[in-house]
Amino acid sequence: MKVLVINCGSSSVKFQFIDLKHEKVLAEGIAEKIAEDISLFTFKTETFTKKNSKVVIKNHDNAIQIIINSLTDKDHGIIKNISEIDTIGHRLVHAGEHYSGSVKITDDVIKVMEECSSLAPLHNPANLKGIYAMQRLLPDTPQCGVFDTAFHQTMPARAYLYALPLIFYTKYKIRRYGFHGTSHKYVADRAAEYLNKPIADMKIITCHIGNGASITAIDGGRSIDTSMGFTPLEGLVMGTRCGDIDPAIPIHMQKEMGMSVDEVNNILNRRSGILGLSTISNDMREIEENIVKKQIPEAIQAHEVYAYKIKKYIGAYTAAMNGLDVLVFTGGVGENMPILRSLVCKDMSYLGIIIDEKENDQFKPGILDITGNDSRVKILKIPTNEELMIALETKKYCMDKPSC
Amino acid sequence: MKVLVINCGSSSVKFQFIDLKHEKVLAEGIAEKIAEDISLFTFKTETFTKKNSKVVIKNHDNAIQIIINSLTDKDHGIIKNISEIDTIGHRLVHAGEHYSGSVKITDDVIKVMEECSSLAPLHNPANLKGIYAMQRLLPDTPQCGVFDTAFHQTMPARAYLYALPLIFYTKYKIRRYGFHGTSHKYVADRAAEYLNKPIADMKIITCHIGNGASITAIDGGRSIDTSMGFTPLEGLVMGTRCGDIDPAIPIHMQKEMGMSVDEVNNILNRRSGILGLSTISNDMREIEENIVKKQIPEAIQAHEVYAYKIKKYIGAYTAAMNGLDVLVFTGGVGENMPILRSLVCKDMSYLGIIIDEKENDQFKPGILDITGNDSRVKILKIPTNEELMIALETKKYCMDKPSC
Repeated sequence: MKVLVINCGSSSVKFQFIDLKHEKVLAEGIAEKIAEDISLFTFKTETFTKKNSKVVIKNHDNAIQIIINSLTDKDHGIIKNISEIDTIGHRLVHAGEHYSGSVKITDDVIKVMEECSSLAPLHNPANLKGIYAMQRLLPDTPQCGVFDTAFHQTMPARAYLYALPLIFYTKYKIRRYGFHGTSHKYVADRAAEYLNKPIADMKIITCHIGNGASITAIDGGRSIDTSMGFTPLEGLVMGTRCGDIDPAIPIHMQKEMGMSVDEVNNILNRRSGILGLSTISNDMREIEENIVKKQIPEAIQAHEVYAYKIKKYIGAYTAAMNGLDVLVFTGGVGENMPILRSLVCKDMSYLGIIIDEKENDQFKPGILDITGNDSRVKILKIPTNEELMIALETKKYCMDKPSC
Repeated sequence: MKVLVINCGSSSVKFQFIDLKHEKVLAEGIAEKIAEDISLFTFKTETFTKKNSKVVIKNHDNAIQIIINSLTDKDHGIIKNISEIDTIGHRLVHAGEHYSGSVKITDDVIKVMEECSSLAPLHNPANLKGIYAMQRLLPDTPQCGVFDTAFHQTMPARAYLYALPLIFYTKYKIRRYGFHGTSHKYVADRAAEYLNKPIADMKIITCHIGNGASITAIDGGRSIDTSMGFTPLEGLVMGTRCGDIDPAIPIHMQKEMGMSVDEVNNILNRRSGILGLSTISNDMREIEENIVKKQIPEAIQAHEVYAYKIKKYIGAYTAAMNGLDVLVFTGGVGENMPILRSLVCKDMSYLGIIIDEKENDQFKPGILDITGNDSRVKILKIPTNEELMIALETKKYCMDKPSC
């Protein structure tokens, strides 16, 4: 079975075409700068790579048409006919409280996504454009949606409610939703599989650390708390996002520092995080170089703040679950920055966490077990694969059900 | 030695006159609604109580004059002459990064407080009014200041830095300061004394839970992290303050809900917390009644959010210190609400915390040891006494030093 996985942003469409039988990516790529004067298109198969930086892509329909054309291209494509696309899996962002799992795209789902657009004003309309385009271009192909928020719908009220006037939740839908759900679920499932234990009996903390970053407490396979909140701004320190701060600070920035609310929004989302604190970069590879090779104090300090925040969330979630069996690192940074994993796990023996420093320093592909001697908690690096997860969910929810 | 402890707010002056030899409060009271048409004045000794609700108190000078007159009143006062006031101890709020301990009030201290007024625009100017009034009315009496922020100055950068552009810290002084320092230090000292162990060898978490609430990690007697931040809005759920929320929420309230920044400020500080979430009250005694006697769902739910947040901070700080020896509950709620302590400590055995439910239900005055069998962590209820702490600090810093 072959699934076309689509991730539509406001000005980009990412895709992977996956053969589920062999869990293999047959083709992948991205259309970028959609609706700008000049757009970019990248297409890659095992034997062929195309980078077109002078293409005109007017809209999402256009982008998806180009993707389909590339997949079915006579010379460099990998299928002869669009009928070989068995199903389409969309990475979708926000379903509010409506869905706790993946869904087949129906009119009802589209309606829910439209309703939730105010909660994700950049993402949901873009996601919908992708759905509409697919409906037009591949009207006979079933579509499935995997929401970033869905996995976290199992959180109890004590975790998702903010201490705001209750009407903010009941009427204005302001609560913790959490994001990166597909990734957290994927690596938790992989951890249970790797350790050969039923996930129902396990307490797992998954750290998805990339340019965006979040951490989730997974008790018995269910998300019971997560660090991103109403939006992806809350929680850990990120590439350019501030994560947790005193909520009086945005107010102070306006009232005492003379900024507009838009300036505040821009600074907290785009000028803060490891970029703001280090003054160097939002790219942790650069930060790492500035720590390890150059010993730049700002980089060392920013990295300490970054790691300390993760450490505190691990403690908080261990308390929330009254225990911890497995700690998972994933995401671009979580998978590839051993000095971060080392700093997070340093002096955590009281919680049963002891890292194997030697093993942690290995750059091995795939799952890496970095559990130290005497560690009560298993510590694993597990590469995330959201696209594969979406493809698997799509198969499960869209193809295996008689209603499909 | 007798110390007059003064706490000047923007429209009130609270005081206690303490005999340090016997650690006894000789007189106490409060001047309220200063500068309003009609003010209130309360004065209490062991044998006499006066409540005057029709007094005119024009300003802080006036209030302090009335306090001194009452103390030296021929019929109901407790001293004959102002010379019996050996020293004055001020509860002061914000010293920025200038002082990590108590100080004798000098021109330099006053200058620092003026400089830090932008960080505590309601509190520092009021504190200064009290200092000036005392300088005029009791010019020969030494004055000492105990800052709410001072105890937390030992926090490392990883705990006090926010992931904002670094210039926000270096130039605009935006960082975690922490508050309630006097109370956290006081109960930590009492805990060490009670357990007869050197505080230098102990890892303590102190939960000061009142209408305002904060929690502090104290490692070897030093504050290494605390939940209140740049302002007292951050951290735990409080009576009317929201504590931690997604920093995108204040922005959303303005951009999507059409509120002004002042409305946002007002809601987060005065309409949120347990009041907002329960829709019932900011007074935990009422919340408790609505849980225990009436089983009101909103009260139960708000209490669960409230307790869960404390639980997570305990976990976070246990991770930060890599261990925990003592957990202390203090403050109006922390001392008097067993169902809160019970809920916080429930299912915390992985961290070594097991409460003695029976002992926890006792309403005994003074220190209460509520440590359960097999608990690795000592759990104590310790009444706070900020005024006594200020008096003790005043003696230590203001009277015992040759420079005084």
